[in-house]
Amino acid sequence: MTCFEPIGTIHSPFTEVNGMPIQPVGAQGVAGSIEVLPAFQEGLRDLEGFSHIIVIYHFHRISGYSLLVKPFLDNTDRGVFATRSPRRPNSIGISVLRLTGIAANVLHVENVDILDGTPVLDIKPYVPKFDVWDADRVGWFAGKVEKAESRKSDERFM
Amino acid sequence: MTCFEPIGTIHSPFTEVNGMPIQPVGAQGVAGSIEVLPAFQEGLRDLEGFSHIIVIYHFHRISGYSLLVKPFLDNTDRGVFATRSPRRPNSIGISVLRLTGIAANVLHVENVDILDGTPVLDIKPYVPKFDVWDADRVGWFAGKVEKAESRKSDERFM
Repeated sequence: MTCFEPIGTIHSPFTEVNGMPIQPVGAQGVAGSIEVLPAFQEGLRDLEGFSHIIVIYHFHRISGYSLLVKPFLDNTDRGVFATRSPRRPNSIGISVLRLTGIAANVLHVENVDILDGTPVLDIKPYVPKFDVWDADRVGWFAGKVEKAESRKSDERFM
Repeated sequence: MTCFEPIGTIHSPFTEVNGMPIQPVGAQGVAGSIEVLPAFQEGLRDLEGFSHIIVIYHFHRISGYSLLVKPFLDNTDRGVFATRSPRRPNSIGISVLRLTGIAANVLHVENVDILDGTPVLDIKPYVPKFDVWDADRVGWFAGKVEKAESRKSDERFM
């Protein structure tokens, strides 16, 4: 077993899972912040040079999991590892957020699709050379990804 | 504190940290596999339709951390959250790997920059609509990212 202590907390406009955007692409312009614990503030040095960051967090309001889930963008049961569903064996989320500024231990971010109060496990710089791949097959998402801009979450994973 | 049980294990040609590629972009064509625990095999359904997957794992050979690190691509101390160093407060790694096939509970992958025996925490489908962002600023990586194709790791984070 591997255990992690949060390094900070997300603040966002979303206090309920129901009705949230399901991806950053559906939350464009939505502002929030990441309050990093003061003990880790020195680790933020140099981060203001990046326009985007990868935020790794714990879906703390989700309990349990299913190996087959009906994802937000589909009506068919899919293997959970072929979905971005939060209700997964290890309930770890990742979002690429736009970094708009840093003031002491607080990161100001946009495109926030994360619930208010979510514990943050890690922050990494987004580097296109490392993170952008020419994926030529997107499985069951084909023809459905555009809907992520407007589709909101509901209670299916609570 | 948040605790996770691995869902599987990475098998790769790299049995020592020293001399490994430092990013998937420096491991193009390197083949490996992810052995998912049989209990989770049903969750792999539909995954074969994707050309790339996001693998989230635990840097299990790293202990402790520093808030300032001299990353592989630089000679200057940088805030750890502005680097992809494995020696971070929560030693979580992410790599986008090419998925070449699935046989029962084993995923065959390429571009493997991960140590043999690494515990896998999560697998998600890579979806460009969600994961590709037009990052216009990459901070201290500017002018240095190309070196990630050839630079190998050393013992600085052990």
